[in-house]
Amino acid sequence: MTKLSPTERTRIHRGPARGNYDRDVIHSILDEALVCHLAFVVDDQPYAIPTTFARIDDRLFVHGAAASRMIKTIAGGVRVCFTVTILDGIVLARSAFNHSMNYRSVVVLGTADEVTDLAHKRRALDAIVDRAAESRSRSARPPNDKELGATRVFALAIEEASAKIRTGGPIDDEEDLVLPIWAGHVPLALRAGAPIPAEGLAHDLATPGLRHRR
Amino acid sequence: MTKLSPTERTRIHRGPARGNYDRDVIHSILDEALVCHLAFVVDDQPYAIPTTFARIDDRLFVHGAAASRMIKTIAGGVRVCFTVTILDGIVLARSAFNHSMNYRSVVVLGTADEVTDLAHKRRALDAIVDRAAESRSRSARPPNDKELGATRVFALAIEEASAKIRTGGPIDDEEDLVLPIWAGHVPLALRAGAPIPAEGLAHDLATPGLRHRR
Repeated sequence: MTKLSPTERTRIHRGPARGNYDRDVIHSILDEALVCHLAFVVDDQPYAIPTTFARIDDRLFVHGAAASRMIKTIAGGVRVCFTVTILDGIVLARSAFNHSMNYRSVVVLGTADEVTDLAHKRRALDAIVDRAAESRSRSARPPNDKELGATRVFALAIEEASAKIRTGGPIDDEEDLVLPIWAGHVPLALRAGAPIPAEGLAHDLATPGLRHRR
Repeated sequence: MTKLSPTERTRIHRGPARGNYDRDVIHSILDEALVCHLAFVVDDQPYAIPTTFARIDDRLFVHGAAASRMIKTIAGGVRVCFTVTILDGIVLARSAFNHSMNYRSVVVLGTADEVTDLAHKRRALDAIVDRAAESRSRSARPPNDKELGATRVFALAIEEASAKIRTGGPIDDEEDLVLPIWAGHVPLALRAGAPIPAEGLAHDLATPGLRHRR
């Protein structure tokens, strides 16, 4: 398993045992999350905006309308922070102080490069659409030239990056263990409901393979 | 329903029909989300860090270890962006271009003020613990002076804020409606699993009321 080298910016200082710099671990968290928060700065004001993304090898891809503030800003080559957080559970300790959450998060820092080569751009957009359902880019109508032109795609290298992971039950202080207070953890997971066909959809079309358990 | 006034920073430009400035709508999204992403800037590098929070009336409260970078940074009175995103579904259109997500997000901009009054600080920390389970702050062992001292609490006014909401099925181009491609949406929701008691927990303790459906 190859490891990334933490920098002063990505090294986990609070709860260092929860820090993880393994490429495979970082990739698996990125591949499970459907939404990232992309942070950037405009006129000294930071923004964290949710958006979809995809990973191909060691790069993350985001896309957006050419007119969006986020896209115009990151096109300027400014530093960004790309964060995904998967919530895995609520941790109830005997003490209020030791309450916590189980989670897997990844932070990637850097600057994003625009993907202008059309073949690469199509490949990145396909990867984003494939996050919605298995092989979706092969069944959906592909982007035409006008749609490709209206969308800008940016790549961010997964180099200055770290994961932070908490799992398991509460860690109470020794003297709190005898208190008659329920303690433990409650797993949380994103679950899919039944797919809802679009109005007027033909009845003989197969529902695509979903990425989330029902 | 009272409305916030959008500023140039919080007005929704992309998909303006999805923008919402109603206080009640913003509050209900904030109250459902368990985790926010707090964006701040250190040495020209933005960060978006996941953390827990609570709302009391028109203010958001976050807390953290006094030694954490996030806490030390926001204590400096810098501008922050507080974002929550609730993922409600995946939207599959006939065209790759019109794929989307259903979501409810809130962005709050401003600077955070430290809560130093001990009664207010305890009330904010109680509100954060109550996010974990119903009335949890009344059953858990309350913070002692040492724990209170190790934690700093900050308040952010919900003033410069907006929500963005997408619901429903795909919006395909007229000419794509005849294509033999499944289209529709797949609801997603965070669901709880069975609570897992801490090791050695007495068997006669009642499990607390959970905030998520099983």
